[in-house]
Parts: sequence; C-alpha cells; structure tokens
Amino acid sequence: MNASDALIKTLIANGAEVVFANPGTSEMHLVAAIDSHPEIRPVLGLFEGVVSGAADGYARMSGKSAVNLLHLGPGLGNSFANIHNANKALSPMVNVVGDHATYHLKYNAPLTSDLDNLAKSVSDWVGRSNSVDDLCDLGNEAWKNANAFPGQISTLIVPADCAWGDFKGDIPKPLDAVTPIPIDHSLISQSLETLKQDGSILFIGGKFLDEDCLILAAKISSATGCRIVTDTFISRIRRGAGLPKIEQVPYFAEMAEEFLLNTPGAVFIGTSIPVSFFAYPDKKSYLLPNETKIINLCSPQQDGYDALNALSDECNSLSINENLIHSSIIDIPSSGTLDTISFGPLLAGLMPEDAIVSDESATSGLFVTSHTFNAKPHDWLALTGGSIGQGLPLAIGAAIAQPERPVITLHGDGGAMYTIQALWTQARENLNITNIIFANNSYEILKIELDRVGAVQTGQRAASMLSLDNPRIDWIQLSKSMGVPAFAPTSVEEFTKIFSNSVQESGPSLIVISL
Amino acid sequence: MNASDALIKTLIANGAEVVFANPGTSEMHLVAAIDSHPEIRPVLGLFEGVVSGAADGYARMSGKSAVNLLHLGPGLGNSFANIHNANKALSPMVNVVGDHATYHLKYNAPLTSDLDNLAKSVSDWVGRSNSVDDLCDLGNEAWKNANAFPGQISTLIVPADCAWGDFKGDIPKPLDAVTPIPIDHSLISQSLETLKQDGSILFIGGKFLDEDCLILAAKISSATGCRIVTDTFISRIRRGAGLPKIEQVPYFAEMAEEFLLNTPGAVFIGTSIPVSFFAYPDKKSYLLPNETKIINLCSPQQDGYDALNALSDECNSLSINENLIHSSIIDIPSSGTLDTISFGPLLAGLMPEDAIVSDESATSGLFVTSHTFNAKPHDWLALTGGSIGQGLPLAIGAAIAQPERPVITLHGDGGAMYTIQALWTQARENLNITNIIFANNSYEILKIELDRVGAVQTGQRAASMLSLDNPRIDWIQLSKSMGVPAFAPTSVEEFTKIFSNSVQESGPSLIVISL
Repeated sequence: MNASDALIKTLIANGAEVVFANPGTSEMHLVAAIDSHPEIRPVLGLFEGVVSGAADGYARMSGKSAVNLLHLGPGLGNSFANIHNANKALSPMVNVVGDHATYHLKYNAPLTSDLDNLAKSVSDWVGRSNSVDDLCDLGNEAWKNANAFPGQISTLIVPADCAWGDFKGDIPKPLDAVTPIPIDHSLISQSLETLKQDGSILFIGGKFLDEDCLILAAKISSATGCRIVTDTFISRIRRGAGLPKIEQVPYFAEMAEEFLLNTPGAVFIGTSIPVSFFAYPDKKSYLLPNETKIINLCSPQQDGYDALNALSDECNSLSINENLIHSSIIDIPSSGTLDTISFGPLLAGLMPEDAIVSDESATSGLFVTSHTFNAKPHDWLALTGGSIGQGLPLAIGAAIAQPERPVITLHGDGGAMYTIQALWTQARENLNITNIIFANNSYEILKIELDRVGAVQTGQRAASMLSLDNPRIDWIQLSKSMGVPAFAPTSVEEFTKIFSNSVQESGPSLIVISL
Repeated sequence: MNASDALIKTLIANGAEVVFANPGTSEMHLVAAIDSHPEIRPVLGLFEGVVSGAADGYARMSGKSAVNLLHLGPGLGNSFANIHNANKALSPMVNVVGDHATYHLKYNAPLTSDLDNLAKSVSDWVGRSNSVDDLCDLGNEAWKNANAFPGQISTLIVPADCAWGDFKGDIPKPLDAVTPIPIDHSLISQSLETLKQDGSILFIGGKFLDEDCLILAAKISSATGCRIVTDTFISRIRRGAGLPKIEQVPYFAEMAEEFLLNTPGAVFIGTSIPVSFFAYPDKKSYLLPNETKIINLCSPQQDGYDALNALSDECNSLSINENLIHSSIIDIPSSGTLDTISFGPLLAGLMPEDAIVSDESATSGLFVTSHTFNAKPHDWLALTGGSIGQGLPLAIGAAIAQPERPVITLHGDGGAMYTIQALWTQARENLNITNIIFANNSYEILKIELDRVGAVQTGQRAASMLSLDNPRIDWIQLSKSMGVPAFAPTSVEEFTKIFSNSVQESGPSLIVISL
C-alpha cells in the first residue's frame, strides 16, 4: 500500500468524512488515495479560502474536523484568512499540505517558500513528515490535536515522496481524544455570590451556546438576577422563539463600554474578557470597569456544561423567568417595498425551523439581526475572526454537515467578493443555501470607522478606497455565471415568494437586496 | 503632522507613485494621508491577492516598487500567493500592513494573529514600528530593502497608534540605493573558454532579459557557438521579430533533462541552475548532467550588464548570426474556425507592437507561445512562482506602469478563478487590458500530472477534484458582472475583429476561447 493510501485510511479511522480540496501536482497521490476510499467525500473549492472557510462551517455544524487538502505554501497562504476565522471560532481543522519531495526542497524550485513558518503562524500544531514511516502517526497526531476540545488548527506537511512511497506498517489506531479539562469546583460558590450582586454578568461563549447551556444560564439568571451575555461574534449559537435570551456585547467600543458600565462582577464560562474590536484614539480597549470583579470559572478548553450545571444546582434554579424567553411575535409585513424597515421582520417571519444562518452581514446586520431572535429556532454562525470573506464558504461546510437543514447566508457585498468562488462549489454540490447579499456598493463599515478614528476630513481619493461602486457589481450575472440562480426582489411579495421557494428547494440561490 | 502623513511623504520622497490597497479600520489614518497627497495614486483591489499581484506587475514594468496597503494578518495572508510570485520574479515590493495599536495587541482582539511570523515567512525584510518616532525611518528602510537590486519583499507593520500619533520630527531623506554587486572579472576568461566548448550554454535570467542583454548574449553566441538559454518562467523578457532568440528550459522534467543533455559547461548570469519544477518518482530534480562544468559568473544580485559586456568585449563579438534572430514570418489565418491550430499564429499576427503579455496560459500556452516569438516586439511576463492566480492582477500593475501600451493577458480558466476580482479593478481604472481566457473547464495540467507521478488508475472522484466543469462557468456573464465587456468568438474573423478593437480601445475586455 502506498503511504497516501495509509494516511487516508488513518484519517478515516479517526472519523474523517469530508475532504475540502484544491490540490496540485505534489498532492496527486493523495488525490488518487481519496479516489479509492468512498468513505470520504471530496469537495473541490476553486480557491483555497473557500476550502478553509467550508471546513470551518463543517466543523461548527458537525463538531469535528474535516480534512483540507492544500498545495504547498501558496495554497496554505490562500487559506490563511479563513483558517484565522476558524481558529477564533475554536473549530477543529486538519490541513494536509503537500510539499516538494524531501530531497527536492534544497533546489529551491519555484513553488518553494517558507512553508514551515507560514504553517506555524496559523496553526496550533504543525507536523512535517520526513518519511513514509512517520506519516500515519503524524496523521493521528494531527487529528488528535485538531479535535482536542474545543478545537484547534493542525497542519500536517506532507512531502511528495512521503506520500508516494511504499508503506509497510499497520495503520495505527486513533489516539485517545482530548476531552474538556475539569473546572475548579471551589470557584462555584464565589461565582454565585458574584452573580447575585445587582448588575453582575454571567458571560458564556465558545462551545457553550447550545440550547442546554442557554437553558442552564437562564435558570441561573432567574435565580440570581444576573445578566447573561455573550461575545459580539460567536462560533455558533442556538436562538429563536422559545429559547432563552442572551445579550451580546455591542461592536463599537463606546457602545460596549456603556453596555458594561455598572458591572460589579463577571463570571466567565468558555470565553474571555471582552475587549474592543479595534483600538481608537482616546477610547478604551479594556471594556469592563476596572473595579469589576472577574472570575474565570471555565476557560474555552474546560468543561462549561459542568460549570453551568454546578452553578445551576448550587442555586437550586428550576424555572426560567418568562421575560428571559424570546417571544415568537413578529410583525411580519405582507406587502410593500423591500427596505431596511421591512426586511428584518420579513426574513424573521419566513425563516424555516432549524435553519442555519451564516452571518457576515456587517453593517446590514443592524436592521436584520434583532428581528431574527423571534424567528423559529435556528443556529447562527458569525464572523469570529473579523476577516471578511467567510460567509459564503462557511455556508458550504454547514450544508454538507447538515444536509437536511436549509442554510441562509447573510452577506455584505464587500466581504462576499473576497471568496465569491464559493458560489461555484455551492452549485456543484447542489447545496440548499440561500445567499442573501446586501448590496450597498461600499465598505460601509469603513466609512463609519473613518469618522470614528478621528481621521481628518477626506475627499474623493479616500472615498475611492472604500467604495465598491464604479463599476457597480451585477450580482445577478455574477451568481448565474457560477451556476447559482439569482434574484433581485424589490417588494415584500417578491421576496416572500423567492425566499420561500429557495429554502424549500435543493440547490443554492442568491438574492440581492439593493440598499 | 500626524505620523501617517509623514510616512506617506517619506515614501513619496523615495519615489512611490502608486498604492495598491485594500484597507480596514486600522489603516484609516493612512487612507486619510493618501487622500491628501495627489502625488500618489490609490488603486483599490477587492481582494488582497489582486493587490499584491498588481504590485508585482507594476514593479516588473516600472522597475520600482509600489506600496501595498493591507489590513492586519489576514490581509497579508490573502496577499501571500502573489507576494510569493513577486519574490520569485525579483520584484521590489513594499507592504505596509496595519496592525492593532501597540497597547491593544495584548488583548488578543478577534483580528489578532501571528502577523510577525507570517510577515517573516513571505518577506526578505520585516520592520515593526513601535512609535511615531521610528515610523518614517522604517519607511525609508522598507523602501531601500525592497528596491535593493534586483528587488525584494519588504513588509512594514504599522500599529494603528504609530500611524495616528503626532510626528514632530523632519521627514528623513531617502537612503542610498543598493545597486548591483560587481562581478568577479577573473571569471570572464574561463567563462569564455567554457562557452566555446561545443554544446555549452550561456544561461541568462532574472533582470537581464531586456533587449540590450539579449543582443549581447546573441553576439557572444555568434562568437563562441554557445547556446543561449533562460528559465521556464521569467519575470520579464523582450521578445519578438528582429530580436535575438533564446531557448527556454522545458517545463516537464524529462523533457528538460533531454534538453540539457550533452552540455559540457554552463555559465550563469542573473539566474541559478535549472531544477525540475516538481519532483517525480524516479525522475531527476537536478537537470544538468553531473559532469557539466558550472560557472556562476553573476548572481541575480550582481551586475549582469557588466558580465555580458565583459564577455562580449573579451570575445570581440560584433555581429549576430542571422539564424539567432526571430523572423517576422507568420502564416496568419484569415478565416476559419478558431481552434488550437489557428489561434497561435492568429494572435501572433495581431499582437500590436510593444504589447505587454501577462502569461498564465498554463497548458494552453503549448499552442500559443511558440508562435508569438515572431510577433512584433513585445514584453512577456510569466508565472514566476508557480502559484496560480497571478495573471489578471499582474496585468493591472503592468497597465498602470505603462499606460500607453496595450496589455494582453493569456490565462487558464482555473488560475483566472483564483483572483477573478481583478476584473473589477481593471474596469474601474479603465485599463487597456485584453484578457484572453482559455476555457478547458479543467485543471488540465493536473490531469497530465496525475498520470506522470505514477498515481494508480483513478475514477470519477479524483476527476471531480481536477475538473472545473459541472457547473460550467459562464465567462461572459462573469466578466460583465464586474464591468468588463466580454466576447466568445468562434471564428478567426470574429476574433480578429474583437481583438483588434480591444487592444486599440481604452478599457478592459475579456475574450473567452472555448477548448
């Protein structure tokens, strides 16, 4: 058996089911090995940012890593931004990066780059195979480290000769999984004392935003009176009508500071102290008041379920205050112009149960997000690392992980252009994804930020760097060119019909909302 | 004056004229500074791979660096692949990468990544500003290192507070330029002796492929009988009717080995010993015979003009053998089907004088490249680092550097999809670029390589990872969606009309050739 075959068998034994790929010559033996193993599904992306973004979406919705197949340094470089987002989402990810044969590296052929340092800069674990003999063991290590709770980035560098050589050993058994680290139970009673102080906050985040966790948090809040808060950008959260409410730290630093004023204490589970997304002249980075008492009860690597259960048991909380539950009441418009007033409630009213939302709506989220809390229960995935171009690829991975559930992408136009090639993969894989593009023809957030950072008065030349206009992108043609049907509704009635069809039918579509 | 203003003034004093940009919040003060300096032209790319590819094209055609304005680690990561290509092209490049404010980094905000190691992995020189006081001096260093002959990658990391603070000093004077290192003249006579041996090769490359260098090489060849050879993928070469011929090392290792058989000696000027692009089982990486005598007369950093002049003087070569000059005879088809037979001579016949060709034609080059040697004199730019997605952005930079000259892009479809956003910038800047896309709906090279690496027989699942079909990309819609007029000629007559108009008119166009 050749080593590529052995590596693929090793990864399959660990639980690998999907390979997101954009291979090149140095990965041809791996391509052949994947070909002969129908247990693993290859999904081609026409750019590696699509590959890594899709793997992140898959991880968020399946709870385990996919395998990414990438071509040397440039392939990993092209993946960098969405690996970064995955890293901030605590998503498990295994990057298998082909490299020149061991003996070929010294010749500095054109595709040679500083792959090892690049890999280190974007990975929690890096392994480099030196021979066919270490390849499978490194595959096991890569999987184990990627899937160590809650999730990390593993990058395995595979020189071509290590992949094409003959493997004579046995396929090694998967290594034991790294499970959540136990919490320190001696912190429970002081955590509860803190939460009972008026205005204190139970911060939950990371992997502890599913329905069970939210219900526990709501019970604790009902018993102690604490606020429940999570981060501005979350990896995955369950939300919607009938589910507990959770506040989110506002994006802009001055609003966040205001939001966190008068907080005597804060208990953290699965996440860290909130900080400003960017620094601004004369604005704070550390957003909590200096006098707020901080208890780090549970890091992202620890057992947040245990922490929440222990808190809930200790305060003997059984019921949830009604005002902590999202209502299902939405004032759904049935006709009229599709605009920033009507769009939010309309979408919220139309969202099918168990939808998955890939949210990179950026400034357009301001008129959408708040309404969707009252939609039917769904999962919401946000732009965790701030690097735009995540939403369209993320939807691919989510749809592959959960093929029975409709996926809805909410995307700003600027970010969507970053990894627009994702539409092609959506079409090829016939994924049920409804991409909603908010076209304001601008990096709108930057226009706001240009004011906020106190930059001096600017003119046409600065504006040109923040505008997507001139030429205006034709989203209908762009989408159709890659096989995704596209629509530009302007009325509530039109949107209702198009959207309802789209979420019910297999295959992707794109709806552009002109603003 | 704020520090951003001072940095932009410093870069302008060094000769910076163009900023290729995709900025974010942390670069807003730099955006404002660029706004107030009309000496420098901002060019927006909708993805950072467009930014770095355009800067490479600008450098190749202007001989100096542009400035790239990038947003933190992810912005630099997105640029990685085309910086890699620029690095292999010996193109000067200054990346100015905004970062979080110095005091904000410790909070690990979402966009925080290991920017420093990423920068090191892709740069020859990295500087990080620590205060407003060092920013301009670092700007000078960045420029000097980037533009050190023949060209390098400089990356200057600018924390937001170093850019927005008040600068009280004077703008520093530009540093002395790093000029070519003198060659060792004692090597000249043995070089000539070597070149006189039957079958020996004068290898020239790097920055020594302009008309002067080619004429000197042809004179030396005429006097000594040596072959003149350059690399498979070159940064920039002057070629066409009336210009000296130069052989290129074939792409595939076995053909290259054959090409280099029976070479008693080789003298290198501006380039290195040719090696196989990839390693293959049981094929050689080092392509020259082991017994070939190697003389490294002039490294890429040394003075190749001096080396060629010295060789030419020493052998007293005055005239060029007629058989070393490309003829202008092309058998131009005037009608019939546009296919792999007719296309090459047709393009060669229609290419206007002084065109600039950005070549990422990949496998389609096989039926194009050889014909164009007889076209009117032009410059040819190739995919130096092997990382696909260079051609469309490179054309942007070339067109901005040389606005009077028509640019022709020859591009495979797979590579074009990598940085397809480049079309938008071509439209916005109204650049005279004629993009020819060869649509074989496939990573055709990989189908060839899958056989060549000896991978076992594969089926549908492997094929799916190498095919761009299903869905088939509609290049006409894709191009028009970003404001670039597009055409799909099927006959010689149609192509003749469309192409001739396109190279004469301002603004870009796209011509898809279905294969």
